[in-house]
Amino acid sequence: MAKGDTKDTIDRLYGVIAGRRGGDVEKSYSAKLFDRGRGKICQKLGEEAVETIIAALGEPKENVVCESADLLYHLIVLWIDVGIEPEQVWTELERRRGISGLEEKKLRKGNKSK
Amino acid sequence: MAKGDTKDTIDRLYGVIAGRRGGDVEKSYSAKLFDRGRGKICQKLGEEAVETIIAALGEPKENVVCESADLLYHLIVLWIDVGIEPEQVWTELERRRGISGLEEKKLRKGNKSK
Amino acid sequence: MAKGDTKDTIDRLYGVIAGRRGGDVEKSYSAKLFDRGRGKICQKLGEEAVETIIAALGEPKENVVCESADLLYHLIVLWIDVGIEPEQVWTELERRRGISGLEEKKLRKGNKSK
Amino acid sequence: MAKGDTKDTIDRLYGVIAGRRGGDVEKSYSAKLFDRGRGKICQKLGEEAVETIIAALGEPKENVVCESADLLYHLIVLWIDVGIEPEQVWTELERRRGISGLEEKKLRKGNKSK
Repeated sequence: MAKGDTKDTIDRLYGVIAGRRGGDVEKSYSAKLFDRGRGKICQKLGEEAVETIIAALGEPKENVVCESADLLYHLIVLWIDVGIEPEQVWTELERRRGISGLEEKKLRKGNKSK
Repeated sequence: MAKGDTKDTIDRLYGVIAGRRGGDVEKSYSAKLFDRGRGKICQKLGEEAVETIIAALGEPKENVVCESADLLYHLIVLWIDVGIEPEQVWTELERRRGISGLEEKKLRKGNKSK
Repeated sequence: MAKGDTKDTIDRLYGVIAGRRGGDVEKSYSAKLFDRGRGKICQKLGEEAVETIIAALGEPKENVVCESADLLYHLIVLWIDVGIEPEQVWTELERRRGISGLEEKKLRKGNKSK
Repeated sequence: MAKGDTKDTIDRLYGVIAGRRGGDVEKSYSAKLFDRGRGKICQKLGEEAVETIIAALGEPKENVVCESADLLYHLIVLWIDVGIEPEQVWTELERRRGISGLEEKKLRKGNKSK
């Protein structure tokens, strides 16, 4: 990937993983997960969430980085399996939290006045 | 946010939520979460992971979008609380899965030949 | 319940909760849970499992007692909703772990020789 | 175990597993779990909770029996590791839900009148 690429890691990873669907289950972990089905994918997602929690309550904190990466990887696999595009989640995140440029500005002002 | 901004949703959201740490717990849900501490943040992360799983095994699939957004939001809160930068997770995701431009290319060729 | 009753807490609780199914959702939390359905019951079970984990990794340890009680309560609700009798789980536990009187005896001997 | 034994499965299993603590990690899964520590025990508990949920939302329902047995097994391991006696959880369950003989009776009457 060239520096300055505007596509973020998750979007790119989504494309890569989606391309592995239906691939050789002996060579690709992602292909294997899709082959084992929705229940297995959900199981792995749950496991990684638990491991992220345990890492966050223990030491060292670097473990949270690894577990978060695993959690995100399996979340992306689930999105593909369900038929969700990352864009839908970004839209929801921005909509729900209402993070417009305006609100960010207001927030910064609010923080300054505290 | 201007269109074409290269910063992705999660990075921006991270900045916004980090700015709310220590803020008014009556006005900001994020401020309240930080105030309640690591255990509470982990609890919410776990709850949202469970809800994502349940949504993925049920209907309608749109629920997975909402639950994923909630899961990511709480994961970001946890990163801030633990002291992790999103960049560290992106690096780990790219390193582990080995998604270099070269491998993506190889992957595409591999898929073509199938 | 008379003292010396051979029926254990879970079996009795199972009977009580099962009797609340279809009852007044305003008066009984169990009735309300059944009314909200399998997904909600699973969600609560997952939440209590997460809270048990967080309690076990924190302080005070008494919290693990409370969270375990909550976890077991929701597990019983799930058994009723799915149509499982506690007896089936006891049988599975004894079968899988192979806890015959003989093995217990062997185990005790093994521990003595250590 | 003789038939008619008043000790229930969980209490007996608790005794057996507690006896394996500090034992040969090559021969006993329980000994191995204790050896790997609290974090690992919590991780397994979380995994089994997730698998119970997934089983409950899928088919066949018999899977819920197996997953529930696994969940209970790991919960017992956690109790031992934390230093909790099953009796404490039974007391909490009975106290919280207030399942006195009187209330059971009232409940049965209430159900009859519906």
